[in-house]
Amino acid sequence: MALVVQKYGGSSVGTAERIRRVAERIVETKKQGNDVVVVVSAMGDTTDELLDLAQQVNPTPPPREMDMLLTSGERISNALVAMAISSLGAQAQSFTGSQAGVITTSSHGKAKIIDVTPGRVRSALDDGKIVLVAGFQGVAQDTKDITTLGRGGSDTTAVALAAALKADVCEIYTDVDGIYSADPRIVPDAKRLETVSFEEMLEMAACGAKVLMLRCVEYARRYNVPVHVRSSYSTKPGTMVAGSMEDIPVEEAILTGVAHDRSEAKITVVGLSDQPGYAAKVFRAVADAEINIDMVLQNISKVETGKTDITFTLPRELGPVGMEKLAKLQTEIGFTDLLYDDHIGKVSLVGAGMKSHPGVTATFCEALSEAGINIELISTSEIRISVLCRDSELDDAVRALHQAFDLGGDEEAVVYAGTGR
Amino acid sequence: MALVVQKYGGSSVGTAERIRRVAERIVETKKQGNDVVVVVSAMGDTTDELLDLAQQVNPTPPPREMDMLLTSGERISNALVAMAISSLGAQAQSFTGSQAGVITTSSHGKAKIIDVTPGRVRSALDDGKIVLVAGFQGVAQDTKDITTLGRGGSDTTAVALAAALKADVCEIYTDVDGIYSADPRIVPDAKRLETVSFEEMLEMAACGAKVLMLRCVEYARRYNVPVHVRSSYSTKPGTMVAGSMEDIPVEEAILTGVAHDRSEAKITVVGLSDQPGYAAKVFRAVADAEINIDMVLQNISKVETGKTDITFTLPRELGPVGMEKLAKLQTEIGFTDLLYDDHIGKVSLVGAGMKSHPGVTATFCEALSEAGINIELISTSEIRISVLCRDSELDDAVRALHQAFDLGGDEEAVVYAGTGR
Repeated sequence: MALVVQKYGGSSVGTAERIRRVAERIVETKKQGNDVVVVVSAMGDTTDELLDLAQQVNPTPPPREMDMLLTSGERISNALVAMAISSLGAQAQSFTGSQAGVITTSSHGKAKIIDVTPGRVRSALDDGKIVLVAGFQGVAQDTKDITTLGRGGSDTTAVALAAALKADVCEIYTDVDGIYSADPRIVPDAKRLETVSFEEMLEMAACGAKVLMLRCVEYARRYNVPVHVRSSYSTKPGTMVAGSMEDIPVEEAILTGVAHDRSEAKITVVGLSDQPGYAAKVFRAVADAEINIDMVLQNISKVETGKTDITFTLPRELGPVGMEKLAKLQTEIGFTDLLYDDHIGKVSLVGAGMKSHPGVTATFCEALSEAGINIELISTSEIRISVLCRDSELDDAVRALHQAFDLGGDEEAVVYAGTGR
Repeated sequence: MALVVQKYGGSSVGTAERIRRVAERIVETKKQGNDVVVVVSAMGDTTDELLDLAQQVNPTPPPREMDMLLTSGERISNALVAMAISSLGAQAQSFTGSQAGVITTSSHGKAKIIDVTPGRVRSALDDGKIVLVAGFQGVAQDTKDITTLGRGGSDTTAVALAAALKADVCEIYTDVDGIYSADPRIVPDAKRLETVSFEEMLEMAACGAKVLMLRCVEYARRYNVPVHVRSSYSTKPGTMVAGSMEDIPVEEAILTGVAHDRSEAKITVVGLSDQPGYAAKVFRAVADAEINIDMVLQNISKVETGKTDITFTLPRELGPVGMEKLAKLQTEIGFTDLLYDDHIGKVSLVGAGMKSHPGVTATFCEALSEAGINIELISTSEIRISVLCRDSELDDAVRALHQAFDLGGDEEAVVYAGTGR
């Protein structure tokens, strides 16, 4: 008998009718002889409605109270799914994140999971019950306050529970059929991937693939939890995210896909003194503003001036914060100018095969130049090549690369419509 | 510095605008130098909407999951009020019933409070914070599941917290100006009562006065918590429920008011053997069906037959259950017939003055007979006279008694519109 953890997104339980359908799928899994733990996000618009209410009473609501407010959404959906399950004759029990032993840090709105102690979940399973756990939420280890995990929180809850319960698989039900070789909205012949290694999925997620959040994949990789991405609306096979790329025979290693990201902005620090420690000052300043930077480029120093430029990318919504922080420190750090550009796009090619297939970078650059796309910045990892271009050229870049590396398939893709938490 | 517990009903927080107004009143109380603990019911229609959702997924939802579902309503309203308070510059923290230490039995949907251990509430108060506690809910002592307290649960939560925190007063904010000498919808010149003793309020509540639920008054009396009933929409003085009628000088003791109740039905067991133990069999049968009976009448036995009739009243919604239970046992108990009547009304006169004013019963009966109302059953306590009549005659009966005992005032009454939980 296997232990299966299933996670359903907010759109999968958006109406009473959908809740009943989800319940049928859950009971079916139980009838097949599995122990089943289910994590459900808040129903469709619940979160937006609660956010709207909060805005009406306080434009800047205290994070602790926001968490108290928002976590009620998952309680509602989980209780309703439990009711739907019992109406099908099976036994179900729903637990809050706190009851399920999801222990987190106390940083409200973006808490991190410290530990999962699923004692009550385990004993409910031992009683033959289907267990529902409210996703996206936990309880702070120190303050005992209710916390939320932020974006991708429900997926992470599911994976964390699967790890703590030593589940055989964590099934993430969403509104796409799986992980694709590119965003089907941009590349109509994008191919669904049967399996993806953790490392490849990490790179895809880090480069903008939205089906799985990075933190969820990181968690799954750390605890080696196979994650099965499937559609809530079909019984198609989906994509299995599991295993290390080290286990893929070199000969079989291939290119996974093309990811893109239009959520970044670019800051260039001009005329920075090309001495040890000056770049560090810049990045310390940015780090102090709690901004994670992504790509970095340092130009070759101009000998006559002994000055250099440093360019880096950061989340677009944090662009103004970063600029302000650096501007304040202009004299202290000592640079001549600051440039800001939020019309950039990032396209990435990911795949373990990169190591064993020479000339990938060459083909990559040729494909873009043939498409008339100018490369503004390049960064690479062992299994990834990423470049910046104009955001207006991003879609063309994705299509050009997808075709150049022959990643297409013939299966028809379900267009991705965005997941909730 | 006083410690004040305030409770606001669902209609008082039905919209963002009302929530802001409630927040202002709370902050005002804090500014006056009081420690403030607030219990808020779920917003206006939230509970009905959740019940409707539950019905859609399962016509007979499991009580445990119903409690998980419904308690989210109070979490939402309390978090929102906390946000509104902090938008006014004061510090607020909201707690679930469980976090506030409301320990209950595990009978979902109608749990009883076993203990209140408000450690977190106390320390938040000590930090100078305004504390919000989700009403109507607690945590089961044995199963650690989330429970709801049933009707009047939020009022009871407030009184229980006031008792555990040794508060100076528990203010119940509702949509009437206080306790009236009769229902103002029936008696336009009904008078608002300045003060009512616990015993009198118990009788009023037990006889159908709906402003305060019986269980809440019982709790307040047991722990001697003064309950101040006030309007959410005005600053009128309201009614103070406090003290024992024993403390009222006999000379000043007066009649409190006229209560009515149209929620009962009447069952008559005909031709019961007039031997010791037969009545007991009847009431044991009813008790086994978990039905609380109210008034009881045993007719004088007919000597020639040695048979008697027993009539009792019970909650109307349980009438069919009671009839079914008794019908099953007809042969075992041995009676000739069962009569059911759900067109009855009960009118009661309550007041400590009854003891010291002779002739109250006479005046009572005269008033009703002059109004052409036939008395079907009488029961009395030390400070109460109750009679059954036709439900169609109930309003006339209330008016007749209210006038006969000159209970009217001239202050204009706010018409009672029903409270939530």
